[in-house]
Amino acid sequence: MFTYKRRVNFYDTDLMGVVHHANYIRYFEEARVEYLRAAGWDLTELMDEGIVFPIVEVEAKYKESARYDEIILIHTFMRKVDRVKLEIEYEAVSEKTGRVLATGRTVNTFTDTKTGRIVRLPKDKVAGLMEFTKGDRNG
Amino acid sequence: MFTYKRRVNFYDTDLMGVVHHANYIRYFEEARVEYLRAAGWDLTELMDEGIVFPIVEVEAKYKESARYDEIILIHTFMRKVDRVKLEIEYEAVSEKTGRVLATGRTVNTFTDTKTGRIVRLPKDKVAGLMEFTKGDRNG
Amino acid sequence: MFTYKRRVNFYDTDLMGVVHHANYIRYFEEARVEYLRAAGWDLTELMDEGIVFPIVEVEAKYKESARYDEIILIHTFMRKVDRVKLEIEYEAVSEKTGRVLATGRTVNTFTDTKTGRIVRLPKDKVAGLMEFTKGDRNG
Amino acid sequence: MFTYKRRVNFYDTDLMGVVHHANYIRYFEEARVEYLRAAGWDLTELMDEGIVFPIVEVEAKYKESARYDEIILIHTFMRKVDRVKLEIEYEAVSEKTGRVLATGRTVNTFTDTKTGRIVRLPKDKVAGLMEFTKGDRNG
Repeated sequence: MFTYKRRVNFYDTDLMGVVHHANYIRYFEEARVEYLRAAGWDLTELMDEGIVFPIVEVEAKYKESARYDEIILIHTFMRKVDRVKLEIEYEAVSEKTGRVLATGRTVNTFTDTKTGRIVRLPKDKVAGLMEFTKGDRNG
Repeated sequence: MFTYKRRVNFYDTDLMGVVHHANYIRYFEEARVEYLRAAGWDLTELMDEGIVFPIVEVEAKYKESARYDEIILIHTFMRKVDRVKLEIEYEAVSEKTGRVLATGRTVNTFTDTKTGRIVRLPKDKVAGLMEFTKGDRNG
Repeated sequence: MFTYKRRVNFYDTDLMGVVHHANYIRYFEEARVEYLRAAGWDLTELMDEGIVFPIVEVEAKYKESARYDEIILIHTFMRKVDRVKLEIEYEAVSEKTGRVLATGRTVNTFTDTKTGRIVRLPKDKVAGLMEFTKGDRNG
Repeated sequence: MFTYKRRVNFYDTDLMGVVHHANYIRYFEEARVEYLRAAGWDLTELMDEGIVFPIVEVEAKYKESARYDEIILIHTFMRKVDRVKLEIEYEAVSEKTGRVLATGRTVNTFTDTKTGRIVRLPKDKVAGLMEFTKGDRNG
């Protein structure tokens, strides 16, 4: 489990005075990138090798509203890691109240930039990530 | 079924050269608003009466990429309409190729601005929408 | 002069209940693209030829607020057109009240995708645009 | 002078592979909020007192492109501070290369939430900010 922390920007809010729901999808992206970085994955390096990782599924459930300037903790769990995809779950929690704001899930596949086809990453590349995140498969 | 048409803006794309996945959640919002408008629902009027309609669930599956300047048709279906919520499905299709780009689903509840609690809309308010969208429950 | 019309989306607003100021910069982009399209310029074709047109200057002055669902007219003027750049002015007006919401100005240069250097477009390419927009230089 | 540091998100980029120009306006907002926080200004408190601070002018000049995952330093200067407005300048610099990416300037006025009119902040409120930022008026 990895926790990503970020503040709600003014421009993230909508006229209801709370974070617009679509922005959580962006927050999840930030959390995912930072988790992968913590695991030693540099996504720009992968892109230089011709591999991208488009999202193929996303979902979110919204429980409570987050307001401008609030600090959100995004607990992030790599539920499935294999050579062709990652399945990740997210729990966004208000730092102040400890209450769950939203939960989410994404699936992304490793894809060849040129062909647009799914690729299998080398075993050793994936092994490190599996080891680093193994606690996340018992949640 | 209602079809909402929109063009991909330059600023909707990301470095992969395609629409960033989070933007479909915004496109779905646009389609939802226009469908409700076509059915005679003016959301600003509802807000003036103290009713908002926050999204409580969203999901999307991505099939193919959309590029800058492409025209996207978003076929929109009201799968469930009752006094407390709307469940809506979306199918985003490339106008040029006819291929499905993404599918999605949202649930929103009617909520009292002051209390933050779910409210039941008046029967007659909902009756019109149910009638207008009844073809969408046989899909 | 070209007028681009668009509605304010829910997600364009912020907690003040009005369009967030940064979104006008995106609206100006939409207006610019549609004006160029009307003049026969297909930007994706230019990109295929290795030419992009990054913004090098942008400015906006905000007069009045625009609200959710309002229709905005963006009057767009090509103040300078030459082989290396475009200078464009914008006036965003509320369709309902006729009042000016914001004014703006952008400068963009034609740039070679590979070298990143400014390029001079062919004379005949620019001639058509100059002719089409000549009324805008007397404003 | 206050320096705000942030990383370029994936979703901040466009099909040119760089930060979309409109996103700098958002980065400037983040920098402004953090500078004011460092000076002891809590904007949510001001809003609770019925005061908002809409942007009335914004401008940016773009020098070089910033790429995904790059760290940007935004040097922020309060050029004018008085009881009705703030004028702030920004210089966005690549942490890695030290080169200037963009410069900018915003003006915002203090405004009464109810009347929409400009208000004069109490002298002592402004005095603290003037003192804290006085070095920025000699740049």
